[in-house]
Amino acid sequence: MKLYGYWRSSAAYRVRIALNLKNIQVEHISVHLVKNGGQQHQSEYTNMNRQELVPTFVTQDEISGETLTLTQSLAIIDYLDELHSQGSLLPASIQDKALVRSMALLVACDVHPLNNLSILQYLSNDLNIDDEAKTKWYHHWVHKGFIALEAMLEKHSGKYCFGDTVTLADLCLVPQVYNANRLKVPMEAYPNIVRVWNACNKLEAFDKALPENQPDAVVQ
Amino acid sequence: MKLYGYWRSSAAYRVRIALNLKNIQVEHISVHLVKNGGQQHQSEYTNMNRQELVPTFVTQDEISGETLTLTQSLAIIDYLDELHSQGSLLPASIQDKALVRSMALLVACDVHPLNNLSILQYLSNDLNIDDEAKTKWYHHWVHKGFIALEAMLEKHSGKYCFGDTVTLADLCLVPQVYNANRLKVPMEAYPNIVRVWNACNKLEAFDKALPENQPDAVVQ
Repeated sequence: MKLYGYWRSSAAYRVRIALNLKNIQVEHISVHLVKNGGQQHQSEYTNMNRQELVPTFVTQDEISGETLTLTQSLAIIDYLDELHSQGSLLPASIQDKALVRSMALLVACDVHPLNNLSILQYLSNDLNIDDEAKTKWYHHWVHKGFIALEAMLEKHSGKYCFGDTVTLADLCLVPQVYNANRLKVPMEAYPNIVRVWNACNKLEAFDKALPENQPDAVVQ
Repeated sequence: MKLYGYWRSSAAYRVRIALNLKNIQVEHISVHLVKNGGQQHQSEYTNMNRQELVPTFVTQDEISGETLTLTQSLAIIDYLDELHSQGSLLPASIQDKALVRSMALLVACDVHPLNNLSILQYLSNDLNIDDEAKTKWYHHWVHKGFIALEAMLEKHSGKYCFGDTVTLADLCLVPQVYNANRLKVPMEAYPNIVRVWNACNKLEAFDKALPENQPDAVVQ
């Protein structure tokens, strides 16, 4: 099994946490998102992932033996979770599962995509948006999402996003907070988000998945 | 059961298709996204959905009897699919399920959110982007997504996105194509997407869910 990722990619970070929680060993292959205009745009990679985004997960189909190439972090995580169902990342009840998915999708659909590298590059290169307005854009969408997520955590969180067990929602929250911190989003209004983020980072699976703990990390 | 939606919302459109396929009757409540600055921003609605986005699904928890309020269209659809598992919207095998989810998420995470009403409003109001550049932005992200989706359909589609059975991927594809057509995105490069779109629209569940067939539709 191979995971094509990048230390700073939030979506790859989510999958790394899942792999660690499930104790699944894979080969990590770094796709440098910036060097030489971005390795994710080179044909060697785009043959596997036409979206030119990380991560991509490559494995062998257990039944047919064929190569299975999966894109989209949440699809990869669901796959890993079903394959290794012990310590499921989703609650058992249909209702609870839906609540966890709605938290995860809030981040994955309505926060992260708006602040992705490719979008920030488009804002600069195609729309000539300056750095100040770009930072404002970034903060705006994080705040929109975090206001809603904080309200959900107020209602549903325990030690983690949903009760006292780590779920898919935590796998989405942690990389998003990491990213928000990097872009200096004020977090005072989100005590539950910060509390859950701290609780998660105490776990080895989350710590090992931290961007700066990856072999391809460039830490100044 | 109540669905708060809007005729033109792609995310609500996805849920309408799921409800029709599953033959589930709900009360449809229209949240006008434009009138008076948008009803989704009024406290009556934001109390249920702090993201100020449609749809919101409200039901009674079958066990506790408590009100269950769900946001995020894909979480709502998964909930409905598990509750009424006949005619599942996901294939049985873990591998196939992951492929269907990756197609659905490609649209739901990387195309739709970038072209949502709130983003287009931010481009105009906060970044002073003119209509021409806004249309270019819209087309850009649709093309990025559709190039990748077309490649996946080439490999996995039958009559529908994944083989000959309607799946979650079709529920995401159809509203996105509807929207792309409305914004005049050229579709010549995507023969499989167009073919699947046409096949889906021949089904009553998809036809009934069309924006113009909703009671709150304003058709010029």
